[in-house]
Amino acid sequence: MARGAIDLNADLGEGFGRWRLTDDEALLSVVTSANVACGFHAGDPATMRRVCGRAAERGVRIGAQVSYRDLAGFGRRAMDVPADELAAEVAYQIGALEVFARAEGAVVAYVKPHGALYNRAVHDEEQAEAVVAGVRLAGALPVLGLPGSRLLAAAGRAGLAAVPEAFADRAYTGAGTLVSRREPGAVVEDADAVVARSVGLARDGRVTALGGEVVEVAARSLCVHGDTPGAARLAARVRAALEGAGLRMEAFA
Amino acid sequence: MARGAIDLNADLGEGFGRWRLTDDEALLSVVTSANVACGFHAGDPATMRRVCGRAAERGVRIGAQVSYRDLAGFGRRAMDVPADELAAEVAYQIGALEVFARAEGAVVAYVKPHGALYNRAVHDEEQAEAVVAGVRLAGALPVLGLPGSRLLAAAGRAGLAAVPEAFADRAYTGAGTLVSRREPGAVVEDADAVVARSVGLARDGRVTALGGEVVEVAARSLCVHGDTPGAARLAARVRAALEGAGLRMEAFA
Amino acid sequence: MARGAIDLNADLGEGFGRWRLTDDEALLSVVTSANVACGFHAGDPATMRRVCGRAAERGVRIGAQVSYRDLAGFGRRAMDVPADELAAEVAYQIGALEVFARAEGAVVAYVKPHGALYNRAVHDEEQAEAVVAGVRLAGALPVLGLPGSRLLAAAGRAGLAAVPEAFADRAYTGAGTLVSRREPGAVVEDADAVVARSVGLARDGRVTALGGEVVEVAARSLCVHGDTPGAARLAARVRAALEGAGLRMEAFA
Amino acid sequence: MARGAIDLNADLGEGFGRWRLTDDEALLSVVTSANVACGFHAGDPATMRRVCGRAAERGVRIGAQVSYRDLAGFGRRAMDVPADELAAEVAYQIGALEVFARAEGAVVAYVKPHGALYNRAVHDEEQAEAVVAGVRLAGALPVLGLPGSRLLAAAGRAGLAAVPEAFADRAYTGAGTLVSRREPGAVVEDADAVVARSVGLARDGRVTALGGEVVEVAARSLCVHGDTPGAARLAARVRAALEGAGLRMEAFA
Repeated sequence: MARGAIDLNADLGEGFGRWRLTDDEALLSVVTSANVACGFHAGDPATMRRVCGRAAERGVRIGAQVSYRDLAGFGRRAMDVPADELAAEVAYQIGALEVFARAEGAVVAYVKPHGALYNRAVHDEEQAEAVVAGVRLAGALPVLGLPGSRLLAAAGRAGLAAVPEAFADRAYTGAGTLVSRREPGAVVEDADAVVARSVGLARDGRVTALGGEVVEVAARSLCVHGDTPGAARLAARVRAALEGAGLRMEAFA
Repeated sequence: MARGAIDLNADLGEGFGRWRLTDDEALLSVVTSANVACGFHAGDPATMRRVCGRAAERGVRIGAQVSYRDLAGFGRRAMDVPADELAAEVAYQIGALEVFARAEGAVVAYVKPHGALYNRAVHDEEQAEAVVAGVRLAGALPVLGLPGSRLLAAAGRAGLAAVPEAFADRAYTGAGTLVSRREPGAVVEDADAVVARSVGLARDGRVTALGGEVVEVAARSLCVHGDTPGAARLAARVRAALEGAGLRMEAFA
Repeated sequence: MARGAIDLNADLGEGFGRWRLTDDEALLSVVTSANVACGFHAGDPATMRRVCGRAAERGVRIGAQVSYRDLAGFGRRAMDVPADELAAEVAYQIGALEVFARAEGAVVAYVKPHGALYNRAVHDEEQAEAVVAGVRLAGALPVLGLPGSRLLAAAGRAGLAAVPEAFADRAYTGAGTLVSRREPGAVVEDADAVVARSVGLARDGRVTALGGEVVEVAARSLCVHGDTPGAARLAARVRAALEGAGLRMEAFA
Repeated sequence: MARGAIDLNADLGEGFGRWRLTDDEALLSVVTSANVACGFHAGDPATMRRVCGRAAERGVRIGAQVSYRDLAGFGRRAMDVPADELAAEVAYQIGALEVFARAEGAVVAYVKPHGALYNRAVHDEEQAEAVVAGVRLAGALPVLGLPGSRLLAAAGRAGLAAVPEAFADRAYTGAGTLVSRREPGAVVEDADAVVARSVGLARDGRVTALGGEVVEVAARSLCVHGDTPGAARLAARVRAALEGAGLRMEAFA
């Protein structure tokens, strides 16, 4: 992606049956890429269908947000899933989403792991490989993840596009990695700061680390959150600021 | 299908995780069409992948055996699922299976409802329409079902191929419909009788009804069962008898 | 219960994992009986524990809100569950809740079916009997349900206390039964009307039917809803009006 | 327990709905303690009820075999469940089983974690504490586990009876701990050796380690397996050999 353009991605369709979580309508007017929950941590089939329909109408690209099979824990509990099971579970979720994307004349354009699987695939070689194996069962889809993660490395080795993303509301270390959520200051709470960091990350590929130094973060997409009304409004502010800084909103190639 | 050829279908992959049920290996050497469980009543992703692989190796056609979401009841408990939810659930299952079929160079070639959904769609117009709507979300796939069912009627109206099947181990009424399992004599227990009835159904399109009269049953496929070792052996005997009677084993067009 | 006292019941703990639905805090300051979800349509174990703790602190009585096993459908999809399975599923849920009530020095004091099971047990003799059989496995607990329902009749025959409840926000027929939700006017939307009807039902045992005539409704409990913020506020208004009319808020004996 | 008596425990009721796994009838004629699956890795309510009924008839003691919530993985996939969620999940399962034991005039007499939770609680302090916290929510029940495990240590600190068990079909290290299943020789395949080791463990508290030395293993219960027909027969042989060696079969106090 040319400097001058940025992708915005967010998690969508994270309700299940009677329960709603994400403000899908608000987010779809902000993002260029929708990480659609595929039923394992959230996302019943009717919701998946509806979200794909709205995304297609607005020209928002659809991605499969794949997870451990864990509705009760919302996919936030790391699991020691054997590699062959995990690969099959990833592929299953992608396939299930494809049918709804295709019915709207769209496609599943990429894959992003959710929650504990996302975090685990940063450092766990076996699970990173298993996710990639699952993606390859489904097709040669780009994988969205953390720069420097085992996941993106495995995707690259497998010939898949490895797309790095950044988080404007997370603190970075001096090495350009995320500060663990268990540490103080890991989450940037101040909305103005989040907006300013978004512009820095997207336009300049730089962010101020927790220790004060400026670090390089190569990201082709920014992840925004939308599981609270305030978060969706913040996402809209981020988009406005990025556009105000002259950046084009554009799904990654 | 020209008289002279018959399709044999059976339910496969009906285990879940640690549990096994069907003798998939034995069945795959007998049938021409495999109704693969898609995760809602049985069929975890790793099993789906394995069954698709074996089916593709042997040239057995793959179909999606779609069900109510009911692992605890094995899909045998009828559910009042609203039409839009049911359509989406059906499409979800088909899409999930497609990814495994495609990875083996095969396709999902047809859809057959399982258990309580199969029975409900015989007479319930709304659910029959919903199943067909779900199939159409996934694509223009043939639907396998009971002759005279609302399901096949709905499939036909929607422009889908409606493929009637027969059961050699079930008693028929004088009207050519199945005797309810709640009535005595509904299931043909004698293996020799099942074999003989298979030949009559496949070659002549006829079977002796419970009352003794001979009735016409137009079937392009015979369903054999395989959830016990004895049943898998019986299925093999049925195939041998059909071949001995000069019938070609051939998946429906 | 002496005229002059009324029980107020509401569904609580109807989230699951990451998802929240009912405003449990607001409701617990209003009701005298809490129908706690037990995990089959909603209600993860940690939520069940928390709700039991808060209910015990406030002296609100705890009841088991038992359901079909249907998280995806929130227990709103009727299911043809065989009687022995249904009885065991009901007992399982009651037992699971008991452990949390007991840990707080409280008990599970009654049972109320949820959603589609509640509606089915109004007229389905087999399921009504199965629910009662499940309750009896757990113990001689009162059953809360609709006056005239098969459920309360079965409970009575089994020697269980059969406790009739009324709904201030639902229209009644001239025969004193509920107008089906499928018919126009089935739900009373006007808050002032709901409050007025609550007083009439609780104090006088009477309500104006849809056709305009006044009918008798013998109820020892009023059900209030709390799955939206507005509903919880309305529940508080109902309580205030009942108290203003001189009624004591008191759990049924 | 006095030397001269031994408890035999086995996992029972590990089917789910349509699926069967353990030969419950055969095992109930062998063991003195039944670890009954409680629905999270296996064990639907109707099966739990049936197993409790048969166990009570035969005077076999009932224990709760608690697990991670993981039907698809049969509880064999370790999960990072937060402590409060895990404690509540453990208590939920115990409560659900209690209702069926009580209906038969029996009680849940102890708790044993299953699969990955059992293994995790050997060394994971937080999860060991959480399991014990869950048990304490349900009551002051004995906990069955591996000698030297964090689980038994936590149980002891909490004032619960900590009951060590041994495995006749597993290899031991010179330190008296189990050889990991990932290492060669971890499982003793030879039936005669298993029988002989059972007697040594039960009567003498000793077993020959993988390296050839004799080590002390203090066990008040022996775990036998029954998830294959051969395993159930082996369990019967173990019992006969123990009785032949003059040991009484007796549930731990």
